[in-house]
Amino acid sequence: MKEVKLYDTTLRDGAQSEGISYSVLDKIRITQELDKLGIHYIEGGWPGSNPKDMEFYQKMNKMHLKNSQLVAFGSTRRANISAKEDSNLKAILKSGAKIAAIFGKTWDLHIKEVLKTNLEENLNMIRDSVSFLVKEGMIVFYDAEHFFDAYCIDKEYSLKCLLTAQEAGAKFLVLCDTNGGTLTSEVYRIIKQIRPLIKVGLGIHCHNDADLAVANSLAAVEAGCEMVQGTINGYGERCGNADLIPIIANLKLKMGINCISNEKLKELTRVSHFVSEISNMKQRNDQPYVGASSFAHKGGVHINAVMKNPKTYEHIDPSLVGNHRRILVSELAGKTGILVRAKDLDLDLSKEDPKTKRILRLIQNLEHQGYHFEAAEASFELLMKRAFKKYKRFFELQSFRVVVEKLSDKKITSEAIMKLKVKGVTEHTAAEGDGPVHALDNALRKALKDFYPTLSKMHLSDFKVRVLDEKAGTAAKVRVLIQSQDETDTWSTIGVSENIIEASWQALVDSIEYKLLKDEVK
Amino acid sequence: MKEVKLYDTTLRDGAQSEGISYSVLDKIRITQELDKLGIHYIEGGWPGSNPKDMEFYQKMNKMHLKNSQLVAFGSTRRANISAKEDSNLKAILKSGAKIAAIFGKTWDLHIKEVLKTNLEENLNMIRDSVSFLVKEGMIVFYDAEHFFDAYCIDKEYSLKCLLTAQEAGAKFLVLCDTNGGTLTSEVYRIIKQIRPLIKVGLGIHCHNDADLAVANSLAAVEAGCEMVQGTINGYGERCGNADLIPIIANLKLKMGINCISNEKLKELTRVSHFVSEISNMKQRNDQPYVGASSFAHKGGVHINAVMKNPKTYEHIDPSLVGNHRRILVSELAGKTGILVRAKDLDLDLSKEDPKTKRILRLIQNLEHQGYHFEAAEASFELLMKRAFKKYKRFFELQSFRVVVEKLSDKKITSEAIMKLKVKGVTEHTAAEGDGPVHALDNALRKALKDFYPTLSKMHLSDFKVRVLDEKAGTAAKVRVLIQSQDETDTWSTIGVSENIIEASWQALVDSIEYKLLKDEVK
Repeated sequence: MKEVKLYDTTLRDGAQSEGISYSVLDKIRITQELDKLGIHYIEGGWPGSNPKDMEFYQKMNKMHLKNSQLVAFGSTRRANISAKEDSNLKAILKSGAKIAAIFGKTWDLHIKEVLKTNLEENLNMIRDSVSFLVKEGMIVFYDAEHFFDAYCIDKEYSLKCLLTAQEAGAKFLVLCDTNGGTLTSEVYRIIKQIRPLIKVGLGIHCHNDADLAVANSLAAVEAGCEMVQGTINGYGERCGNADLIPIIANLKLKMGINCISNEKLKELTRVSHFVSEISNMKQRNDQPYVGASSFAHKGGVHINAVMKNPKTYEHIDPSLVGNHRRILVSELAGKTGILVRAKDLDLDLSKEDPKTKRILRLIQNLEHQGYHFEAAEASFELLMKRAFKKYKRFFELQSFRVVVEKLSDKKITSEAIMKLKVKGVTEHTAAEGDGPVHALDNALRKALKDFYPTLSKMHLSDFKVRVLDEKAGTAAKVRVLIQSQDETDTWSTIGVSENIIEASWQALVDSIEYKLLKDEVK
Repeated sequence: MKEVKLYDTTLRDGAQSEGISYSVLDKIRITQELDKLGIHYIEGGWPGSNPKDMEFYQKMNKMHLKNSQLVAFGSTRRANISAKEDSNLKAILKSGAKIAAIFGKTWDLHIKEVLKTNLEENLNMIRDSVSFLVKEGMIVFYDAEHFFDAYCIDKEYSLKCLLTAQEAGAKFLVLCDTNGGTLTSEVYRIIKQIRPLIKVGLGIHCHNDADLAVANSLAAVEAGCEMVQGTINGYGERCGNADLIPIIANLKLKMGINCISNEKLKELTRVSHFVSEISNMKQRNDQPYVGASSFAHKGGVHINAVMKNPKTYEHIDPSLVGNHRRILVSELAGKTGILVRAKDLDLDLSKEDPKTKRILRLIQNLEHQGYHFEAAEASFELLMKRAFKKYKRFFELQSFRVVVEKLSDKKITSEAIMKLKVKGVTEHTAAEGDGPVHALDNALRKALKDFYPTLSKMHLSDFKVRVLDEKAGTAAKVRVLIQSQDETDTWSTIGVSENIIEASWQALVDSIEYKLLKDEVK
């Protein structure tokens, strides 16, 4: 069985994503997860470019990784100086990493217009930089930036760049589609041409600007690359890097290529969610293999067929990557859907049970009102548990009042006043907020925080409002969906009402009760 | 130059997306945009499966499309009945569409375990269904569901299915990777094998379960397919369908294949945003070609190089697809767009006019805050007219207060108290409503009705709420879009704020002022 090495650059290229900014601690936590997953190489940062990255390496030097090797990133030396004078190369040495990845130019456009040097000096820069690090005892990977663009313009020179790095001692030559615009068939064709000319390992590094990064990475492997670079969830500059999540799953499950163990493959969904959590990015529901919708079935025809045989509408068994099938509970799904969901919750609900009928009627009634449980499993679970009396209330609302006030052109203000009973104690709180729902949320948390301290560990990660019967204008019914998360889970709740405050309140209460119930079970 | 036909199924397969639910009006608006874009075929729905889809076709029959042809979707007839008895085929005829797309089985697993019939009867079902619709005068496209899975298991039978549909008169045979798990190289290999055996057109229909849908669609075209099916933004069941947005851009800009005009290509970003807006789905920032981050540069090295020559880190000129470069510090938006829109409003706004700069700055500032004038032309018009002083205020708000109250489990109540000045008179009103915005709307109309009696002739026909920075939870900014209509016109207005009441108020005021301004001009 052929093997491919995985090279993760979430901490370096991924951090270039708009909206991502990692602390040193974030980086360490992600590194530990990648190590556990069995990623071969982890690019931790560019020690020569910022002190935070250097700090990361210094801290990592005191830690032990089981499966992964840490790589320090940097560029070839600057033009017209010696390698040992180059502060960026010196920083790589100082990082303590055993492997260096250095990138260099291959494309004359970059050499002439950006570096403002000549083709010959660029070759010298590659040779000097690689051999300097090799002589200092490092293993060196050479990243050929813009390789595919360069190859299409000047085959001979771009190859010369690769061969220069090889002669200087690089162990892997990494072909980068830096601008992300190369077609899959071109990637395959070009690598097929050069593979016989290269003696050392070949790697591939793709960006997703043409929506082809995953396919291009796989085509590169088919054409002879032995290392794939990418990031978890495809984070990265512009449209992102190649997403290692589907790449790993495709290599293992579709191409029969070894990279991580079958056991570790089951961690894929969890690791993807963990990294999105640390990165403070919303997890895409439709992310291949690991998204919440990846094995979700909505249409009645599909549900029916999947119940007979999951292969009918599932390309793999979701448990292989740690994901699971979801039958979207909706009027379309009917009784079968509810039975399946009840089983998932360890609730005994045989078809003949009168409870089944009652719950079914309740759900149909709620869906008729505009509830949409396919998007709010936590609310659905609470509903089922309430029906089974496996549930107690954590607090009781006595009243709330929300006042929104606007004076002429002054800033609008929102205030919530709330009274509730928690564990026998009456709490009377008030809070302001950026809007009426935010004020309510603040007042509720204020009232509960001393009784349920774990609430401080959860936060709302997504808040969606959808107007249902839109034609009714401002009197229309609205559906509020709230997604919440803590350190381990993500859950969704729902509320429906003509009054947006009421709908938000329902979803908010469900979200908090779900969290408290979950913590209690542990 | 080779040409490829585009077939959009956003309204049918896209609507299977978790979280998407289109009204008939939504479908009509999306159809009109797809028509303007130059999509060849638009699959509007499954008329036999639900009355909403049938209503769509009936409404569309009264409208004229310039570039697109509408397609009605359905399945082959049920087993052991005649085609003319099949309610689903009858509904296709009744829809009034000139083209039918019918899907049938190719894979023995489905035929035996789901349909519970035999291979021979399945061929009869294909033959009968296609020839029935052809005899009734329809053009028929045949969708071979699960073609790639079936071909790998039983080449001969899967081919027989295709040939049967061809003999029965189908004009296009569409190869579906229904479960979305086929590798790019396999798609290419299989189509290359069968292309010489088929006389009519071949289409490709991919799903994204292995993150390869776009690459697979392009590989299919390289192997000989002449039609590509997909959805705008890749909406669809599970991990979605092939995203037509990057497919169109790749075909045109990377493969030199004709599908829409260069002029229309510039609409790609706008159409993608429009559809995400109507679908109430968050636009992905990293969506290839059209995302907000697609041409955004964050790293200093990249910014520096891009300033010297954009080709250094951009695979195409973003304006070709109607997108623009962003240097993640200051935003640059399109002056041309504003000039064009000003011209539409008969406002003279030459490029040298200092007003142009001022309006440009204002719009950039507002769009940065989350305003989205593409979907709110009435608000945009008001903005322009205010800048040109072709506008007067119809009333002045002094204050409002909205109180929402909930007592234990009693019904929630909403009340609005409002003070405003109309034509020199101070009006002080109060009103209740089904929610806070409805109460505000009622109080405002009460205050204005005697002064502006035509307001009784207008009503709000659509009310959409979209949470912008969803991660901010209940403190998130919201965008409210209101559509209003009277006896002759329909117009859209917008409001943005962290406070949903404030955002709704802005959109409400714009809607009413637009109506009054319009009536005045008459």
